[in-house]
Amino acid sequence: MFDLKAYIAEKGGLVDSYLKSYFGFEVAPALLKESMAYSLFAGGKRIRPVLALASYEACGKDPAKIVPYASALELIHTYSLIHDDLPAMDDDDLRRGKPTNHKVYGEAMAILAGDGLLTEAFRMLAAPQDGTTPSALLGVINDVAEKAGLWGMVAGQVQDMLSENPAAAPPMAGDLRDEVTFIHIHKTARLITASVRMGGLLACADAAGLSLLTGYGESIGVAFQIVDDILDLKGETAHLGKTAGSDLRKGKLTYPAVFGLEESSRMAEGLVEKAVGALGSFGAQARPLRAIARYIFERTK
Amino acid sequence: MFDLKAYIAEKGGLVDSYLKSYFGFEVAPALLKESMAYSLFAGGKRIRPVLALASYEACGKDPAKIVPYASALELIHTYSLIHDDLPAMDDDDLRRGKPTNHKVYGEAMAILAGDGLLTEAFRMLAAPQDGTTPSALLGVINDVAEKAGLWGMVAGQVQDMLSENPAAAPPMAGDLRDEVTFIHIHKTARLITASVRMGGLLACADAAGLSLLTGYGESIGVAFQIVDDILDLKGETAHLGKTAGSDLRKGKLTYPAVFGLEESSRMAEGLVEKAVGALGSFGAQARPLRAIARYIFERTK
Repeated sequence: MFDLKAYIAEKGGLVDSYLKSYFGFEVAPALLKESMAYSLFAGGKRIRPVLALASYEACGKDPAKIVPYASALELIHTYSLIHDDLPAMDDDDLRRGKPTNHKVYGEAMAILAGDGLLTEAFRMLAAPQDGTTPSALLGVINDVAEKAGLWGMVAGQVQDMLSENPAAAPPMAGDLRDEVTFIHIHKTARLITASVRMGGLLACADAAGLSLLTGYGESIGVAFQIVDDILDLKGETAHLGKTAGSDLRKGKLTYPAVFGLEESSRMAEGLVEKAVGALGSFGAQARPLRAIARYIFERTK
Repeated sequence: MFDLKAYIAEKGGLVDSYLKSYFGFEVAPALLKESMAYSLFAGGKRIRPVLALASYEACGKDPAKIVPYASALELIHTYSLIHDDLPAMDDDDLRRGKPTNHKVYGEAMAILAGDGLLTEAFRMLAAPQDGTTPSALLGVINDVAEKAGLWGMVAGQVQDMLSENPAAAPPMAGDLRDEVTFIHIHKTARLITASVRMGGLLACADAAGLSLLTGYGESIGVAFQIVDDILDLKGETAHLGKTAGSDLRKGKLTYPAVFGLEESSRMAEGLVEKAVGALGSFGAQARPLRAIARYIFERTK
C-alpha cells in the first residue's frame, strides 16, 4: 500500500530544506527577504514541486536530483498568491491562517516581494546542475514561462478578475461554463501542467511520454481548482486557512456556482479518473502520480 | 563622424519591429494584451536593447542576430515602469507624456500586465535561435534574472521606497551618500549592466572582454540615473514626459539632493569618462558604445 502522506512529507521536506538553505543568504534591504520568506515559508504543501519530483520519478529517475528546479515552482506559486491577495485584486486579509503579505509588509513591499520571487525563480531554473543539459533547462524555462504568464496563470487571473465585474469588461464569447473553464484551465491547471511536464522534460522523456504527462497535468489541474471551489463553499475558515465562502461573496465564477455542487464533484472525480488513465503506459514508478490524483478528489470528502 | 542618433533610430527600429510582430498574436483576454502593448509601445527609446546590440557589435558580431533577446530587456524595463508607477509605489499619473497604465486599465490589470511582461521576457530569452548556444542563453537568463531581481532592480526599488519614508524603515548602515549610491546601482545600473553583458555573453566574449563590458555597464548605469535625477530637478514636464520636480516632492533620495547639482553633474561626467576608458581594448566596433556613454552626459546640457 503506497503511503502518499509519507511521500508528500518526505518530498515536500526535501523542497523545504532546499528553499531554507537557498534563502540562507543575506539580501539588502533585509525587509525584502523577510517579506519573501514570510510567504514562502507560510506552510504551503509544496504540491507543485512534489508533482515535478513525482513525474521525474515516473520516468525512472531519482527525484532528489531535481529538487532545485522543482523548488523554483514554489517561488512562482508564492508570488502569484501574494499578488492575488493584494487590495487591487482579491483583497484578502488571510492566507493559510496568517495575515496576507501586504497586511504585514504593506502593498508596495508585497508587489516587490512577488516580483522578486518570480524573477528569482528563473534564476534558479537557469543554474546548471549535474545530470541536466542546457537544452533541457531551456525547454523547462520556456514551458514554465509560457504556462505561468500570458498563456496561462496571468491570463487566468485577468479573466477571473474581469468575470467578477462583468459590467466593466467586454463579455467573453460563449457562456458562463466556457468562462469558468477558461479561468480554471489558465489560472490553475497550466502551472500544474508545467510542474508535471518539468519532470518529463528534465528526464528527457520522449514525445509520447511527455504527451501522457501533459494530459495527466491538465486533468488534475482543473480537478484541483474545482475541489478548491467546493472546499471554499463547504469549508470552515479554520480548516481552509482563509475565509470560507469568500468566492461567493466576491461574486467569483466557480464550478459550484455555474454547474452546481453535485455536478462539480462528479466532474472533479471524472477528471481524476481521466488523469489516472492518462498514465496507462507508466508502470509502478508512477504510483505517486496516481496517488496524488486520487488524493485531490479525496479532499472533498 | 559617428551618427548616434541614426544608430539609435535604426537599432531601436529593429527592436520595435520585432516587438510589434511578436505582439501580433491574439491573447485572451484581449484587454491583457492591450494593457501590455499600451506601455510597451508608449514611445520608449529602447536604450537597453540598443546597448545589448551595440555590445554584441563591439564583440565583432552582427547585432541583427540577437534582436529577439535584446527585445526581452524592453519587456522587463516596461514591467518595472508599470509597477513603479502604481499608487502603492510612486503613484505617478503620467509616463512619457501619457496616462500611466493603471490610470487607463486599473490597478489590478496594471499589476498583471507587469507580471505578464516579466514572465514573457524569460520565455523570449529561452527560445533558441540560430547562432546561439543553449549554454550561452542560460548564462544570459541567469544574469538578467540576477540583475533584474533580488540582487538588482527589485532590491533598488525596495530601498528607494524605504528611503522615502525613513521613519517607517530601519536605517541603512552608512550615510545618505551610501544609500543613494546603493539605490542607483541596484535600481538602474544593474539592468543596464545586464543589457551590456548580454551582448558579450551571446558573442561568447572571453572573461577579460566581459569584465570590460561589465565595468562599462556599471559606470553608464549609474551615470544614467544621476542624469535622470538632474533632469527631473531642472526639466520641464513636457520635455520629460512626466511631472518635473516629482522626486523632490516625494522626498526621493537623489544625487542632486545628496551631493548638490554641480557635484552630481561632475560625477556623471566622471562616470562617463570611466565607461569610455573601460572600453580601451575594444576597437572601432565599440564606437556605438562610446557614443552612447557620451550621449548620456550630453542630455544634461
